[in-house]
Amino acid sequence: MKVLITGGAGFVGVRLARALLARGVLDGRRIEQLVLSDQVAAPADLLADTRVQGRVSPLLAACEGLRRTSFDGVFHLASAVSGECEADFDLGLRSNLDSTRALLDALRFQATATASGGAAAKPAKLVFSSSIAVFGPDPAYPFPAEVADDTLPTPQTSYGTHKLICEHLVADYTRKGFIDGRAARLMTVTVRPGRPNGAASSFFSSIIREPLAGQDAVCPVSPEVSHPVSSPALTVRGLITVYEASREAFVGRTAVNLPGLNVTVQQMLDALAAVAGPQARARVRFERDEGIARIVANWPRGARNGRAARLGLQPEANFEDIVRQYVADCAAGPDAAAALKGLN
Amino acid sequence: MKVLITGGAGFVGVRLARALLARGVLDGRRIEQLVLSDQVAAPADLLADTRVQGRVSPLLAACEGLRRTSFDGVFHLASAVSGECEADFDLGLRSNLDSTRALLDALRFQATATASGGAAAKPAKLVFSSSIAVFGPDPAYPFPAEVADDTLPTPQTSYGTHKLICEHLVADYTRKGFIDGRAARLMTVTVRPGRPNGAASSFFSSIIREPLAGQDAVCPVSPEVSHPVSSPALTVRGLITVYEASREAFVGRTAVNLPGLNVTVQQMLDALAAVAGPQARARVRFERDEGIARIVANWPRGARNGRAARLGLQPEANFEDIVRQYVADCAAGPDAAAALKGLN
Repeated sequence: MKVLITGGAGFVGVRLARALLARGVLDGRRIEQLVLSDQVAAPADLLADTRVQGRVSPLLAACEGLRRTSFDGVFHLASAVSGECEADFDLGLRSNLDSTRALLDALRFQATATASGGAAAKPAKLVFSSSIAVFGPDPAYPFPAEVADDTLPTPQTSYGTHKLICEHLVADYTRKGFIDGRAARLMTVTVRPGRPNGAASSFFSSIIREPLAGQDAVCPVSPEVSHPVSSPALTVRGLITVYEASREAFVGRTAVNLPGLNVTVQQMLDALAAVAGPQARARVRFERDEGIARIVANWPRGARNGRAARLGLQPEANFEDIVRQYVADCAAGPDAAAALKGLN
Repeated sequence: MKVLITGGAGFVGVRLARALLARGVLDGRRIEQLVLSDQVAAPADLLADTRVQGRVSPLLAACEGLRRTSFDGVFHLASAVSGECEADFDLGLRSNLDSTRALLDALRFQATATASGGAAAKPAKLVFSSSIAVFGPDPAYPFPAEVADDTLPTPQTSYGTHKLICEHLVADYTRKGFIDGRAARLMTVTVRPGRPNGAASSFFSSIIREPLAGQDAVCPVSPEVSHPVSSPALTVRGLITVYEASREAFVGRTAVNLPGLNVTVQQMLDALAAVAGPQARARVRFERDEGIARIVANWPRGARNGRAARLGLQPEANFEDIVRQYVADCAAGPDAAAALKGLN
């Protein structure tokens, strides 16, 4: 089978690609080709795999070409992040809405072209990575302490708005039989390696990553702030599980919340101390950033896990496991010494 | 002030235009100009008013020109209806999504152009006519007997999907200060004059309209089918009330349900008999249409009226009032004899 990952050179995309290549199989079928579409090149280890084809271009520009390829499966992860969308309204609309429309239309073209050619029209399976950012407090309604699958989404950012809109496009293209789509709402994925990105949630990684690398970090919100998070590995497992779920098991066409561990900043720092010692913990200081604090105050403080649990997905048991997963990932990577300098 | 009605030659648009011209004032300001944009020409009585300017073109094509006009207020009613969207997927996307995006961007252009010109940037007020069609039964969640403002929208048609998406675009453009937008979800508006349109809800009018005109009518669903409806006059009043509500009174940026009278087909026919006599009632026969029945089975059986009530909007007391309103409208019109032949 032929699989496409949009955003295939990104944080989650790269890990998803590695997981798929390691399995070799998706949905019971052998993966013959894995196309990684992104604005930047995928890492060398992925491109070295003969099954992998990298395509570097903006997704919107790539979609015309996608019409000429017949994909069996798609993971649609490409997206401008929250900070980018707030800073550049048009960029957000283009990257998140127009690109998703173009991708869905390319797959629709594929499905209808196959159908009119006389062959069996099997629409592509598609998993869309939505986000917990679809939820936000609306003055008209109480905002629950924990958001559930059926909590009313009232997004408070353009990013969350775009994700919600795309969920509904995916549902409608699915209803029409143009794709077999499912939307999965990612929790905040942590610990992200590398540098901070444009997301306001960036600190959820940096307060762990920087101390482990022996660097100081600033936490822009107070220790009581609570939020549902997930490790990269569990997030990847969630995306694959949602892909492989039967339509009956997925139930309906409404987006599902992936599992989230509800954790406070304090608990995150306690976990850091437990794994890396008090000297690592001491590298984090609190310095309130009103801009970030205001955004984070609009985020869910926790999530519930009904439909994901029925698909066999549970959140991590505690944040220490997430820190340890990050340490193990770094230890296996080429920059282990620098990334884990703070551990010594 | 300068007001734009998109879909200004349509069923609701024409009545809204007449109501606005009769008041002469909106939001405490005198209406100097009323632009009616539609694909067909507005009725002669409207075009004869010196304040009215008709513009005949598809909305999408009109939006470039709209950038050069500075509107204070907009009622965005233009839309492809449910049947059209199901029959032609691309038409639906173009008429409902692309057109709304273009309209919002024209108003954003207006707001930002004014701002950079140094003048006070007062974004246009906009009321978007959404629909009860955003609601539908999703297998994952119980569908309430009566939908409320905060019922999770899981649309089961492209039309409902587009309406929901536009609600969220309006909310996000409002959050950014590009417009001052409010989305109001219309109930099924009845009794519509004229011929059936492409909407599956068309029979909610024809089972009253045709007998009053002395013609036979077919009801494609069973008498127990229940649905929230509203008269044209109350719908117009709802749109104006939502327009004039302060942001504080509207509360938040989530769409509000306009009031609906929850009525069964049986009650509608009883009201017809009460107003027009048993011979009118006898003109309606039941002939099940599985296609329409299947669509209608996915519709809300009733609606609740929380936020609209706080804006001072209540549904009609009974369906007889709605029938009488239609009779009075017809009696005042040029085709009274034909429209009310069944009354004699």
